[in-house]
Amino acid sequence: MRRVAVIGVGVTKFGKHDRISAELFAEAAAQAIRDADIAPSAIEALYYGNVTGGEGERQLHMGPLAATLLGLPTIPTTRFENACATSHAAFRHALMEIASGVSDVVLVGGAERVLNVPTDAATEYFAYCSEATYEQSVGLTFPGVFALIARAHMEKYGTTEEQMAHVAVKNHRHGVLNPKAQFQKEISLETVLKSAYVADPLKLFDCCPFTDGGAALVLASEEVARKRPRAVWVLGSEAASDTMFVHEKRDLSRITATERAAAGAYRQAGKTPADVDVVELHDCFTIAEIVATEGLGFFEPGTGGLAAEKGWTSLGGKLPVNPSGGLKAKGHPIGATGAAQIAEIVTQLRGEAGLRQVEGARTGLTHTLGGNTATVLVSLFGRG
Amino acid sequence: MRRVAVIGVGVTKFGKHDRISAELFAEAAAQAIRDADIAPSAIEALYYGNVTGGEGERQLHMGPLAATLLGLPTIPTTRFENACATSHAAFRHALMEIASGVSDVVLVGGAERVLNVPTDAATEYFAYCSEATYEQSVGLTFPGVFALIARAHMEKYGTTEEQMAHVAVKNHRHGVLNPKAQFQKEISLETVLKSAYVADPLKLFDCCPFTDGGAALVLASEEVARKRPRAVWVLGSEAASDTMFVHEKRDLSRITATERAAAGAYRQAGKTPADVDVVELHDCFTIAEIVATEGLGFFEPGTGGLAAEKGWTSLGGKLPVNPSGGLKAKGHPIGATGAAQIAEIVTQLRGEAGLRQVEGARTGLTHTLGGNTATVLVSLFGRG
Repeated sequence: MRRVAVIGVGVTKFGKHDRISAELFAEAAAQAIRDADIAPSAIEALYYGNVTGGEGERQLHMGPLAATLLGLPTIPTTRFENACATSHAAFRHALMEIASGVSDVVLVGGAERVLNVPTDAATEYFAYCSEATYEQSVGLTFPGVFALIARAHMEKYGTTEEQMAHVAVKNHRHGVLNPKAQFQKEISLETVLKSAYVADPLKLFDCCPFTDGGAALVLASEEVARKRPRAVWVLGSEAASDTMFVHEKRDLSRITATERAAAGAYRQAGKTPADVDVVELHDCFTIAEIVATEGLGFFEPGTGGLAAEKGWTSLGGKLPVNPSGGLKAKGHPIGATGAAQIAEIVTQLRGEAGLRQVEGARTGLTHTLGGNTATVLVSLFGRG
Repeated sequence: MRRVAVIGVGVTKFGKHDRISAELFAEAAAQAIRDADIAPSAIEALYYGNVTGGEGERQLHMGPLAATLLGLPTIPTTRFENACATSHAAFRHALMEIASGVSDVVLVGGAERVLNVPTDAATEYFAYCSEATYEQSVGLTFPGVFALIARAHMEKYGTTEEQMAHVAVKNHRHGVLNPKAQFQKEISLETVLKSAYVADPLKLFDCCPFTDGGAALVLASEEVARKRPRAVWVLGSEAASDTMFVHEKRDLSRITATERAAAGAYRQAGKTPADVDVVELHDCFTIAEIVATEGLGFFEPGTGGLAAEKGWTSLGGKLPVNPSGGLKAKGHPIGATGAAQIAEIVTQLRGEAGLRQVEGARTGLTHTLGGNTATVLVSLFGRG
């Protein structure tokens, strides 16, 4: 199987935009192509991620639209959708196109636009990623499910609302250092703890925002990438699912798909959690970051809250998590998130992350979760 | 690159169903797994196609739902969407998973349910596969675009409404022989010609119906497939796009994405159009079949209408096209269509197609078109 590298990355400003999502992608893609210093005509395929374009923009079949807007109307293109893990899934499939020898250079990414519709409509469209027959109908959508996860974690391990709040404070502190972040403003522990409950024990500042934005990556085969000193290599990438039904999950304090995807990615990479220097993970809610740091093997089960409280996951800590600001502060344009996380890790491993640089980072990991913990992707990256 | 074979196929009855689309897929998948005579636990990934589930069933993130319903809740799964070419695209990506060595056995397919919503809602959701900013807004959706294609073909080549009607009559005649078809009833040329205009020159009986249904395929690596005498080999598979904007297409009498995808698939397979014994192609409208038979190289440009009129594309003719009844009579559950076409060709090449068997068929081709001619996939299949 051929090795694959990321040779170019691009991310739009995250926040509110007055352009369609395919245009947001085209902006990010143009950046990624320039960053890769490659002729656009070298791109052989487009892997495009989007989740709610049918609902919010009356636009399905977005692959050829994005390719057309980018001036590459004839390349093969497919739209991928895996809830919030959409463009991480697209990335993993794109790896296989290169690994199989079908192509040498592939463009991957995604975009989402949701701030053009009322908040209740956006909330509803996001909820379609949960299970429609038994769960949406009784209101068991994402905040409710992650509140159940938080409660299970609190009861089993003594995790506190204050520890969760530390995740939000840390990610906002990181977001200040990221010019692309939706929120570039520090918040206090008190702000989080005094914010309104959304789904007890989760409060407004435990939740990531709605966001418009796009992100893109240029992937290349070893033959193309080895001449490029800024190439960052994909060391491993694994996907795992879990039952779609919340009532079938046996222990809500764990996300088993994270554990299985991580095991596969570490095995492929020949790495362990101790080898990882920098992480971008799926903090859709603060509790999600805590559970993910445990499931990825960085901290013992039950100690993810302590890690946040002690600052171990802050820039300058033992293992900086979400230096970009994460979904919480950078924002969460769902179809773009997986690719944006990878763009951040590539930037970190190149040593180009500026004020938020994790010094000496050699190995990075991205983790993206979709739906009610039913999809997880984990990928590992390294230099040289 | 490793060779890939189809070792199992399954298709639900096409028509109206009172189950969610993921359940329709599970029915087809269970058939395909039994047909493959393989343990369900051997399946390493699910490639799932669906187009309008968000709109019509409030259900995105359908991959893990389908995997859960199938009793395989932990395998990696992704939803693919490429308008009407959705599950053909999923199939091509699944080939790369096996070709790259990531997996040996992969389940692919799709499902759609649209007859649960009013016809005007289904019409609107399908229209989201056309371009939202400039085209949907002025009413230029699929019947209109294919009417423009028909008019261009009539003006350039003298193709007639009667020739188009022959396509409908032939596909309904074939559909009678397919117990899974939505329509199993012959129609007369007069019925087609006297039906109401939908978009001049296309009449009601020039158009395929709305359909619920599911289709599934089990794909396997050479190592797994070579012991199985009923395996059908994938000889080539190519995708191509064209501009999303109808106003940018230079010659509406041709579908250039078909021509480019076909060229790639023939090259990979080392075959020419003359080698093909049986075809399933995308007859969303009768004119689409005529243009496709030209673009795939079976008939000279401008003679596809004559081929239909002369019966060259009928069962028993020079090159039987759509022995299943095609989208026109078998039905068009959009997320399932590409996989269903492949299931038919596999059945034909195995010699298991019963009353609609194309005698001695050794090489088959499938062609699926998405949106306003912006996506096309072509694949070639053979025995041994």
